[in-house]
Amino acid sequence: MKNNDCVFCQIVKGLMPATKIYEDDDVLAFLDISQVTPGHALVIPKKHYDNFVSTPKDILSKVMSVTQRISQASLTMLGAKGINVLTNVNREAGQSVMHFHVHIIPRYISDRGFQITMLKNERLSELNLPVLASEIKKGL
Amino acid sequence: MKNNDCVFCQIVKGLMPATKIYEDDDVLAFLDISQVTPGHALVIPKKHYDNFVSTPKDILSKVMSVTQRISQASLTMLGAKGINVLTNVNREAGQSVMHFHVHIIPRYISDRGFQITMLKNERLSELNLPVLASEIKKGL
Repeated sequence: MKNNDCVFCQIVKGLMPATKIYEDDDVLAFLDISQVTPGHALVIPKKHYDNFVSTPKDILSKVMSVTQRISQASLTMLGAKGINVLTNVNREAGQSVMHFHVHIIPRYISDRGFQITMLKNERLSELNLPVLASEIKKGL
Repeated sequence: MKNNDCVFCQIVKGLMPATKIYEDDDVLAFLDISQVTPGHALVIPKKHYDNFVSTPKDILSKVMSVTQRISQASLTMLGAKGINVLTNVNREAGQSVMHFHVHIIPRYISDRGFQITMLKNERLSELNLPVLASEIKKGL
């Protein structure tokens, strides 16, 4: 799918501004305009794929390799003490721009920029793990 | 590093139980014992690497490819409507087991199992994006 309204495609084409960090033939990385923490970056394939699941394996590999390099650079150069690497698939998971992108969120001592709250709303005893695993395996 | 105390190394060796979803020579996937949402899975390299940043590129690529396949299977087979794919680097970012692992968290309509709260604790106007980008680029 090519989407003329896709803001990340516009950035790739140079029709929208972005503070770029890295660029090659297939991958672009730039600072997220929202900056959850200083250095919050996005890594995207230049070609439009809707999300993590629909991206070809070779392109995914390139995106993740760049994500790794930028994560390391953020630890080394920005003084970050940790990194959250996150991608959301579909609006139900919080994806806002429907062009595959990986968030790199540097973490600093005492930052409060990013909170991950994992609430156990399902009691483990109510779940049948072998059945869940079996269902997933059927789809592989 | 090999760590005899590493719980994920114990699972790889078969010394600790896990509900496995996928296994090949390099990669293992199993259900997270904590199940934030039904089907919450972890994908790990069999060999011990501390985190996302310290994992060799070829192994990272294999882990992400399996992550993609399981994510797709969760959408297809579990009726999930979205997926959060997350890895945390270092304790400061919430990493609890120091063996690289990727979380696959299926999302369902009206689930409350996972909340991502991005708080803008830094005002964008206080950040110099070109300087931040320049610092990261020096580390690439």
